[in-house]
Amino acid sequence: MSAYADLQRVMNTAADLGAAAAVLGWDQETYMPDGSVSGRADQLATLSGLVHETVTGEKATAIAERVRAEYATYEERKRRVAAMFLRDFDNAKKLPGEHVEDMARTASMAQDAWKRARAASDFTIFQPLLEKIVDLKRREAELLGPAEHPYDNLLDQFEPGLTVASVTPVFDELRAGTVELIRSIAEVQGRVSDDVLYRSYPPVQQKQTATSIISALGFDLSLGRVDLSAHPFCTNFGNKDVRLTTRIREYDLRSCLFGLIHEAGHGMYEQGIADDLNRTSAGGGASMGIHESQSLFWENVIARSEEFWTWAFPILQKQFPDQLADQTVRSFYQAINVMRPSLNRVESDELTYNLHIILRFEIERELIAGSLSVKDIPDVWNEKMQTSLGVVPPNDAEGCLQDVHWSFGGIGYFPSYSLGKLYAAMEWNTMQQDIPDVRNKIASGDFAPILSWLREKIHTHGRTEFPHEIVQRVCGRPLTAKDFLDYVGGKARDVYGF
Amino acid sequence: MSAYADLQRVMNTAADLGAAAAVLGWDQETYMPDGSVSGRADQLATLSGLVHETVTGEKATAIAERVRAEYATYEERKRRVAAMFLRDFDNAKKLPGEHVEDMARTASMAQDAWKRARAASDFTIFQPLLEKIVDLKRREAELLGPAEHPYDNLLDQFEPGLTVASVTPVFDELRAGTVELIRSIAEVQGRVSDDVLYRSYPPVQQKQTATSIISALGFDLSLGRVDLSAHPFCTNFGNKDVRLTTRIREYDLRSCLFGLIHEAGHGMYEQGIADDLNRTSAGGGASMGIHESQSLFWENVIARSEEFWTWAFPILQKQFPDQLADQTVRSFYQAINVMRPSLNRVESDELTYNLHIILRFEIERELIAGSLSVKDIPDVWNEKMQTSLGVVPPNDAEGCLQDVHWSFGGIGYFPSYSLGKLYAAMEWNTMQQDIPDVRNKIASGDFAPILSWLREKIHTHGRTEFPHEIVQRVCGRPLTAKDFLDYVGGKARDVYGF
Repeated sequence: MSAYADLQRVMNTAADLGAAAAVLGWDQETYMPDGSVSGRADQLATLSGLVHETVTGEKATAIAERVRAEYATYEERKRRVAAMFLRDFDNAKKLPGEHVEDMARTASMAQDAWKRARAASDFTIFQPLLEKIVDLKRREAELLGPAEHPYDNLLDQFEPGLTVASVTPVFDELRAGTVELIRSIAEVQGRVSDDVLYRSYPPVQQKQTATSIISALGFDLSLGRVDLSAHPFCTNFGNKDVRLTTRIREYDLRSCLFGLIHEAGHGMYEQGIADDLNRTSAGGGASMGIHESQSLFWENVIARSEEFWTWAFPILQKQFPDQLADQTVRSFYQAINVMRPSLNRVESDELTYNLHIILRFEIERELIAGSLSVKDIPDVWNEKMQTSLGVVPPNDAEGCLQDVHWSFGGIGYFPSYSLGKLYAAMEWNTMQQDIPDVRNKIASGDFAPILSWLREKIHTHGRTEFPHEIVQRVCGRPLTAKDFLDYVGGKARDVYGF
Repeated sequence: MSAYADLQRVMNTAADLGAAAAVLGWDQETYMPDGSVSGRADQLATLSGLVHETVTGEKATAIAERVRAEYATYEERKRRVAAMFLRDFDNAKKLPGEHVEDMARTASMAQDAWKRARAASDFTIFQPLLEKIVDLKRREAELLGPAEHPYDNLLDQFEPGLTVASVTPVFDELRAGTVELIRSIAEVQGRVSDDVLYRSYPPVQQKQTATSIISALGFDLSLGRVDLSAHPFCTNFGNKDVRLTTRIREYDLRSCLFGLIHEAGHGMYEQGIADDLNRTSAGGGASMGIHESQSLFWENVIARSEEFWTWAFPILQKQFPDQLADQTVRSFYQAINVMRPSLNRVESDELTYNLHIILRFEIERELIAGSLSVKDIPDVWNEKMQTSLGVVPPNDAEGCLQDVHWSFGGIGYFPSYSLGKLYAAMEWNTMQQDIPDVRNKIASGDFAPILSWLREKIHTHGRTEFPHEIVQRVCGRPLTAKDFLDYVGGKARDVYGF
């Protein structure tokens, strides 16, 4: 009998345990009482240990070897699924169960500490747990085997194949182009006002509007939800239960609206993965970078275009007639595309965003290399903010405590965001060739052809391919920063008129 | 080395997996999108299978045998915890993993079907799944070994030691006394009006008031939550995360208020269990009957007393001044103690309630004996309602579809409710001896001595004792229906003045 049926059972168990852990994680961020964090940490550690045991235990090891022996005889689809299992298996085998459980327990405590630290704007509350996380991740990088740079093994967990050496020239080109554009814009910054975004927008209506917009884009609310949390995220338990969260700020229209469109981009990706990949090693996104290409595609390429607001502005104006009385589609489009250095990554614009990422990339790289101590993060953060963006956070909450990622051990994650921007721009160029009147469709609120294109080209394939295979298949060429710089440069010139 | 440390690890893993399944169950009833039920069923089946494997697999079996050999050498506390593990182990060993997984999967689908059946008031939607559940439970009864009556093995799962033979005389006495009281009340029913309960009470304020009342009683909201669901329940993930749900009916003040006090009674029990029992086989309530004695103690003995409303009525009147303008403490106390046969178990009064239970007890007993078919339930239900309570439901939603229990496989659960009433009356008599001025304390809103008494006598012990041991230790005598009949008879005479 083929080992594949046995493999399927292993994958199903691992996927179900992973889904259970994800439900517990969602609950922790949305509804769990504050006093329950320690019990939840135990539960997550146990689940995490069992996933590890399921995927790397004796039974799984025997099955993996049988699968490896049969591998060449499988038809294409099975072979691709099995390949992803074996990749995970080989990586997981390198990490002892205690390490995995320790990481899960630490992450759960650290998320709580991060929340408290952020509320108190006091990095020292988070520091001891982040130190533990960095130690664990350095150990993890070592355990994963030799690499040119120890950070490579962590990057690879989010973007298979990505290395410090390969990403550096791309980020260099990106940084150079960005800095040049920022310089050009600085001279004409006064031409565009974004005051409209900071008027009073009642929270309930903000959530209502944002939710109806993501529904129009194609996020299926009968197989998903929207809740509130400190930091927006998307999580899913198979392709039939996809949960988004958002945060609402009465005096910042962008936070809920664009945050939710971003998360819905992740969500539509997960909702679009083929049913037969559910509960297998290929039943998720291909990589964090590809995932971000979807969220950023919807958030920026679509929802920050003038065509989009041709359709959406009347909807928004109906909800907020007083606040938007002095606006036109054009002025609103300009307001949401102001490009100006700021403190917050999530709320920064398409252009300066990448400098936030490069800053985090450098800090992570040095933390993992051992050339930076956790206790020095606030100083280094503020220094780098000054040098690269010319602004300095007044406190840690608005500085190095703004992101949730480190608290769950997501070191190596941040570069994905910028890769996502680069992929999205490449996808957009290809889509415009495939759907010549796509801009008209957006202007008329007809997003179905766009979602169909993404479904067919990207979503349905789940994790059956590596990111570079997807980019090559969809766009016909490898990763480059050129498409993005052209796209964002074009938009900057349009918005500011230079 | 002692086997106890190994046992502790097994118990911790099983408890964490059980907690994870409970979180998924809570989520399914509160926030999960309707379309996600099938994936959730897979996840719950996997968790359930893993609990079974954890508790009965090769490793656990070897540990159980070592524990059994060492057992007599343990100090008291450890011995009691180990005894509960061994009891569960021996029972679980009798149930094959496939049976457990099948039950979990069926229950998850059945809960969804039950919801749809109830909404459509169409038993046939639920019928095929209930048939599957009854088949599985009959099989389970068989697997659990020889018994005088096959239903005994299912009763034992909720109330260890309870049998058809032992409960019948108690229920007979209870039924006889109840029927006699109902007859006496029927003659003077017109003396008391409960119209006040069915005025318009805005849902948001209902939830607010009920929540503030359970907080005053002693339910710790920093280690718990209140949400909405179709059927009220209490679930918990350790003693530091206890979740209650309620349902709100604008035109029925009782549903949310007394429902939530009931669930809070369960919740305070779980919150009061000693920390060292967390994540062990003794880290829960002693039995369903003892659990119900806590929920019914707060719901009925406390919150349906005249003393309670001496304190609570001004609070309620402040929230609903117009609706309660024509009421006094006395008239309100009478209204909430109207004793009158009705259709709905949850909303029925203290007295007639037990007839609802005896009806379900008989149906379950015959289903498991094989002398009643699932398809005949609606007819038999309506017939028995006519005979015992003199009222007939106009449809299945208000009849045999009103309770969630069968949909999750909880056959054998219902008798616990009546046992809970009997235990609660016994506890109340003992408490009045131990705290002579307890009625004054209630009238002044000082519930701390009551909660302390319950904590010390019952809660803190968790599941270190069997129900009959607890009743004997706390009340100094075994189970009887007499205390309850005296209590409820006294109240009936007070309310109706006969």
